[in-house]
Amino acid sequence: MQWYMVALLLTVLTSSQGVLTTLSQSNGRYDYDYATVPFLAEVFKLFVSSLFLWKESQKSPPPKVTTDWRTVRLYPIPSIIYLIHNNVQFTTLTYVDTSTYQIMGNLKIVTTGILFRLFLKRKLSNLQWMAIILLAVGTTTSQVKGCGEASCESLLSAPIQGYMLGILSACLSALAGIYTEFLMKKNNDSLYWQNVQLYTFGAIFNMARLVVDDFRGGFEKGPWWQRLFNGYSVTTWMVVINLGSTGLLVSWLMKYADNIVKVYSTSMAMLLTTILSLYLFNFRPTLQLFLGIIVCMMSLHMYFAPPQMLVDLPPVVKSDLESLVEVSSDRRTDS
Amino acid sequence: MQWYMVALLLTVLTSSQGVLTTLSQSNGRYDYDYATVPFLAEVFKLFVSSLFLWKESQKSPPPKVTTDWRTVRLYPIPSIIYLIHNNVQFTTLTYVDTSTYQIMGNLKIVTTGILFRLFLKRKLSNLQWMAIILLAVGTTTSQVKGCGEASCESLLSAPIQGYMLGILSACLSALAGIYTEFLMKKNNDSLYWQNVQLYTFGAIFNMARLVVDDFRGGFEKGPWWQRLFNGYSVTTWMVVINLGSTGLLVSWLMKYADNIVKVYSTSMAMLLTTILSLYLFNFRPTLQLFLGIIVCMMSLHMYFAPPQMLVDLPPVVKSDLESLVEVSSDRRTDS
Repeated sequence: MQWYMVALLLTVLTSSQGVLTTLSQSNGRYDYDYATVPFLAEVFKLFVSSLFLWKESQKSPPPKVTTDWRTVRLYPIPSIIYLIHNNVQFTTLTYVDTSTYQIMGNLKIVTTGILFRLFLKRKLSNLQWMAIILLAVGTTTSQVKGCGEASCESLLSAPIQGYMLGILSACLSALAGIYTEFLMKKNNDSLYWQNVQLYTFGAIFNMARLVVDDFRGGFEKGPWWQRLFNGYSVTTWMVVINLGSTGLLVSWLMKYADNIVKVYSTSMAMLLTTILSLYLFNFRPTLQLFLGIIVCMMSLHMYFAPPQMLVDLPPVVKSDLESLVEVSSDRRTDS
Repeated sequence: MQWYMVALLLTVLTSSQGVLTTLSQSNGRYDYDYATVPFLAEVFKLFVSSLFLWKESQKSPPPKVTTDWRTVRLYPIPSIIYLIHNNVQFTTLTYVDTSTYQIMGNLKIVTTGILFRLFLKRKLSNLQWMAIILLAVGTTTSQVKGCGEASCESLLSAPIQGYMLGILSACLSALAGIYTEFLMKKNNDSLYWQNVQLYTFGAIFNMARLVVDDFRGGFEKGPWWQRLFNGYSVTTWMVVINLGSTGLLVSWLMKYADNIVKVYSTSMAMLLTTILSLYLFNFRPTLQLFLGIIVCMMSLHMYFAPPQMLVDLPPVVKSDLESLVEVSSDRRTDS
């Protein structure tokens, strides 16, 4: 499978996630406990990956599987980073409102680029750096509040702690992605075996969260396993399956493509969600949405188009570059 | 003189134009007739160019001067295009409000690129096209109204005629620039002789406008020459000299650089004016101003940076390209 097909599918599924989540509400509130969704999604991913691993093990050669403790112990780390991230996010939201937090979330695009360079030692051309900055600017532009919308005065006027925590949050979020990519590419173990390890810890950490919530709530509503599916509708199940599927696609991209592809995929999904919402929920399009989309499209083209398509080079040089590009794109496809 | 020094000077002078014009008002209104400013600026440019032409004629070899009627008759054309443009602008403003008109004015950047390609047959790389679109998007972003600002609901809700006229206006404005560049580069006549012809017609057309205004006003305030300097302060004279100087710099750029350089120069000036206004008139900076500035800076870099600075090319190719760039930049400097 080609990486851009996976990226496209991820974009479509991620953008439907927002729409499905809104549709799963009744009268503007959730009838179910939203914290159960990521837990069940982890269980779904674990189930699917185990199935694929079992199927792979029937074939020859059998999948490469490393069960050494020194490797396995690395797999809870992404979950731990996400745990810290969620707590930082919670604290940040006591300083800034949700729209400011959403705007600051676009910083993640730039921090991912920086950590990609620093930790994974992957070189980017100046044009690709500019493309990454433009992607962050484009998504932010599309989110600028129009006139007449409420709670926009608060933007850029939060206490300094709010901004520091927002930057920390963007770094942690990027770090989790970069660390996962490092883990998936560390050895040529079967993707499904790597997934099984990742999602086992993911399920455990999400279960721990449900237990902690129960203790905090003083077990007033009973233990989590007794009310796990309370208020679940068909749409809620679609939210779970959809979240699980996007997770599996991200895993695939981390192994066979990279974090930047994932960042583009989810940014495009955000724009697609906004466009879908215009039609589904009758929102009014703003000029800034239109401008943001143009900037993101330009950024996409700048990052991924082969150089000879962007700048005019002498004909002799072109053929050399084309062969170079072919080699690097070959490496990116699934074998 | 290098073209980028002239472009930088044009940026500084153009941005001070907005500030000076605001400063020349007293209590929010003009004490003088604003229509006299462009007329006096044309007279100033004509005077300066005549002086330089006279100085040039003392030296040997004497300046190259074509007085053939078939060439001279082309010089009123830019003035005629501007005259049509001003009338279209006036009609457009009966359909759309001034902020929508200002937003649509950024279309001029894209239409200039298109006419540059069509009429002057100048090739641009894909990256340069993208840069031009991003410049238009960036300047537009910086002008998006913030929340709480008045009269923003009208945006994107004007009648269709307003938008059609706005596009026509952008085409006419670009056409005037492209035609002037064609005229200045048509032969290797002295720049000052070309200026003298251009500004003689410019002064005549501006004078005609004052006369027409007098007839329309029924000579209630007396003929224009009797009240030419009425209400002029030192700042008003600075507005005139400044406007004249920017005109002379634009002329220079049309002969030794091109329309795209001019477009970048004036777009950067617009951003600079906004930043200056923040300090001088205590405006609140908006997030969209900040985002627009980043997009314009990226666009500037994309358009003018040599390709080998933007994309990674094999080392052998680099040296070839560097020599190519040197040749083309040599052609751009004044001899």
